[in-house]
Amino acid sequence: MHTAYAELTRHYLRLYRYDHLASIVGWDRNAMMPPKGNEARAAAEAELQALIHRGRTDPRLAELIAAAEAEPLDDVERANLREIRRNWQQANALPEALVEARSLAGARCEHAWRSQRPANDWQGFLENFREVVRLSREEARLLSGHTGLSPYDALMDRFEPGMRAAEIERIFGEVRSWLPGLIARVGEKQRAEPVIAPVGPFPVAAQRALSVAVMRMLGFDFDGGRLDESAHPFSGGVPEDVRLTTRYHEDDFTRALLGTIHETGHARYEQNLPRAWCGQPLGLARSYGIHESQSLSFEMQLARSRGFVGLLAPLLREHFGDQPAFDADNLYRLFTRVKPGYIRIAADEVTYPAHVILRFEIERALIEGEIEAEDIPALWDEKMQALLGLDTRGNYADGCLQDVHWTDGAFGYFPSYTLGAMYAAQWFATLRRVQPDVDGRIAQGDFAPVFGWLNDNIWSQASRWETPELVRRASGEALNPAHFRAHLEARYLGGD
Amino acid sequence: MHTAYAELTRHYLRLYRYDHLASIVGWDRNAMMPPKGNEARAAAEAELQALIHRGRTDPRLAELIAAAEAEPLDDVERANLREIRRNWQQANALPEALVEARSLAGARCEHAWRSQRPANDWQGFLENFREVVRLSREEARLLSGHTGLSPYDALMDRFEPGMRAAEIERIFGEVRSWLPGLIARVGEKQRAEPVIAPVGPFPVAAQRALSVAVMRMLGFDFDGGRLDESAHPFSGGVPEDVRLTTRYHEDDFTRALLGTIHETGHARYEQNLPRAWCGQPLGLARSYGIHESQSLSFEMQLARSRGFVGLLAPLLREHFGDQPAFDADNLYRLFTRVKPGYIRIAADEVTYPAHVILRFEIERALIEGEIEAEDIPALWDEKMQALLGLDTRGNYADGCLQDVHWTDGAFGYFPSYTLGAMYAAQWFATLRRVQPDVDGRIAQGDFAPVFGWLNDNIWSQASRWETPELVRRASGEALNPAHFRAHLEARYLGGD
Repeated sequence: MHTAYAELTRHYLRLYRYDHLASIVGWDRNAMMPPKGNEARAAAEAELQALIHRGRTDPRLAELIAAAEAEPLDDVERANLREIRRNWQQANALPEALVEARSLAGARCEHAWRSQRPANDWQGFLENFREVVRLSREEARLLSGHTGLSPYDALMDRFEPGMRAAEIERIFGEVRSWLPGLIARVGEKQRAEPVIAPVGPFPVAAQRALSVAVMRMLGFDFDGGRLDESAHPFSGGVPEDVRLTTRYHEDDFTRALLGTIHETGHARYEQNLPRAWCGQPLGLARSYGIHESQSLSFEMQLARSRGFVGLLAPLLREHFGDQPAFDADNLYRLFTRVKPGYIRIAADEVTYPAHVILRFEIERALIEGEIEAEDIPALWDEKMQALLGLDTRGNYADGCLQDVHWTDGAFGYFPSYTLGAMYAAQWFATLRRVQPDVDGRIAQGDFAPVFGWLNDNIWSQASRWETPELVRRASGEALNPAHFRAHLEARYLGGD
Repeated sequence: MHTAYAELTRHYLRLYRYDHLASIVGWDRNAMMPPKGNEARAAAEAELQALIHRGRTDPRLAELIAAAEAEPLDDVERANLREIRRNWQQANALPEALVEARSLAGARCEHAWRSQRPANDWQGFLENFREVVRLSREEARLLSGHTGLSPYDALMDRFEPGMRAAEIERIFGEVRSWLPGLIARVGEKQRAEPVIAPVGPFPVAAQRALSVAVMRMLGFDFDGGRLDESAHPFSGGVPEDVRLTTRYHEDDFTRALLGTIHETGHARYEQNLPRAWCGQPLGLARSYGIHESQSLSFEMQLARSRGFVGLLAPLLREHFGDQPAFDADNLYRLFTRVKPGYIRIAADEVTYPAHVILRFEIERALIEGEIEAEDIPALWDEKMQALLGLDTRGNYADGCLQDVHWTDGAFGYFPSYTLGAMYAAQWFATLRRVQPDVDGRIAQGDFAPVFGWLNDNIWSQASRWETPELVRRASGEALNPAHFRAHLEARYLGGD
């Protein structure tokens, strides 16, 4: 095969292999590397990233892509070519000088943020952050020129191809209309339902064994992946060798347990991407939001269901000994407790969207030039009050300084979290329609209907379809946030 | 600096960084990777090796090296240029087709050997091995044409630059004259000195803690390296981040303990290579033999000395509880027990050279075309009888099939083991001359004289000098095997 398409697939296969090396040494840096290895590793990783960048911007690619488009390709090859073109456009839309400046400014801002956040130092943060915003706007402007999208849409398209701010605004605007009321009603209901708190300590060795047992139960393939520990848990590695990490807290087993279940959702998506497409852009996971729909299908839809909690109870007793908190009804109340709080990553399923909506509204306005960086705290305070009824004035550490995302310019990422939650609710609504006994089977420890559906409709599809088409094929309709609302109302207000 | 030399250093710095990636993913493959990661990893590593090979054979290098030689360089730069030239020559001496054929034949032979060895299947092995020998002879012939060395010398030069078979023959010939007699006399002496065997099991967790304690005592920097576990222990990683592995046997703690001490010797050499030269060929360890002189300085010279064994005794009691075998005098007898056996890697310090001499004599004759692959078993039997008085007829698994080296064509490597033992003896003879109280200080747990001398004379010198010059500067004389003989006689026959 000396066609342009064949040459492209060879080129992207080589890049896939370089990405493999980058993933593994990146995992190693976070999970294994001793501190003195850092400098040499940073240099080696930068060298590899430069190599990958040269590959993605190879001047021959434009011509090869154009030539391949004129070749007789089948549907799957055409989908791969679409993803190749997207990869190529992303890599070539920006001048290298801007990419470097953005990367440097982001690294500087993030590094300083690590000490500025604990010091509650918003003014110090602003000094670096203004430059990040300036360069991100410049990036958005250039991407916008290439794509015809609005500046914010152009940034978001990197994470959620095809998704637009107008659509998000419509969806989030609707959520805004019922969410504060729902939170209030749930709070009222739960006040009458006391929860017995588990009593620690929960030894790390026992938590580790529990994590492995639950991951096995959830179908994680330990012959094709590992579970290790790191300061900031993540899901890394490559589809053929997925590397999860977690972090154990001896006073609270629920963080590592639910975190591991969440990462296992990401992991099973990766482990079940079709092997035949591995090595090509076609074979990669669809988007950040679809990825998050898998982790939240596991953590929220499956693991916090009554049936699953019933299976967890004896496992907890087995690993930690018995205690009153491990009664299944109590555990269910514990895992579904709702409480407005300052911190996004500690938020429950019901209040989480409020954190995302707030960030989306602020970052969109910031990138579109409607506000400036110094306007953020006042907007933050106002929106936290409106959405969650919390006073955050002067508390930057637990307010607008809490996330790493903005420090290095990942504007357009936040919506993916709530899109993921909505997709997950839509998957399970579909699943209950096509498999009415699915909850009964879950309660019996039979997850075949769940995994079978996810595999057929999401995992095995990789990047075969653009997101709206994937969603329609899987659930018979476009993204419909009514499923998310119905799920929250059923679980938190209904008899579920 | 737009000089040719400066451009060369940039080029080799990039290769150093690629090698860093290769080392870390190689360590991961052996110590961490789950089985299903193997195929994708092999492809990614092959892609990286191809990249490194393209870098080492870049057509511009010949001209740059020639131009740099005419530039005004200082002594250190000139040493670096010498090492660059050596690296370049090694990479460019062989046509790519031969390198690939050798690598494929070696991989095939090694893979089959893994099951042929336990099956004692010499005839099956021969089928693949003949091709490895044929290609290695071709490789030796081409290298010989480039360098003017004899074929075997040309292969050995890859591992021990500057060392020649004639020199090895002189040295090993002399050892052959006294070794069998020494082994016999030691055996007689030790028959009168019974040893109490340690009684297990020795739990893995306790062995792990002991290994870490001993590594710390020996100055291993855990901020710049790790200890993990793998089926085949090795020392990997990079100078800035050294990765050791070991393997614990619950019935015998001595294997992991002494193995870890051995690897710690390799590790400290790497960890103390001068940082200013890191990234250039100049900054790499001198040779395999010099590397082995560090591991054997730790394992044989230091760790099996009476003084050090006296320090180990309380550590063993601390980690395993007390038992009669942990008496210091008994431990010393245990660690210096001599017993001729079939297996090289299980051999004691006294019989080990016999295994190496036998292999050297056979592989030299094989490469020079004096014998053929099918002649090996008869020669093996004859030499094992002469050197160690053992009958190996028909026992290929514990005879000529026991080593991995020949399976993938690493001819010329074996002499490095005994050269390392001889260098180590020469270092300690010098050390005792310049620091007459060194044994007393060791017995007190003060290793500063040992590590200070090794650092000044070996570690900090990296590849600054060619081996003979390094040896002369360190010890005041050329390699002198009399020190090795004196060491063995003092430890195994004398009152030491």
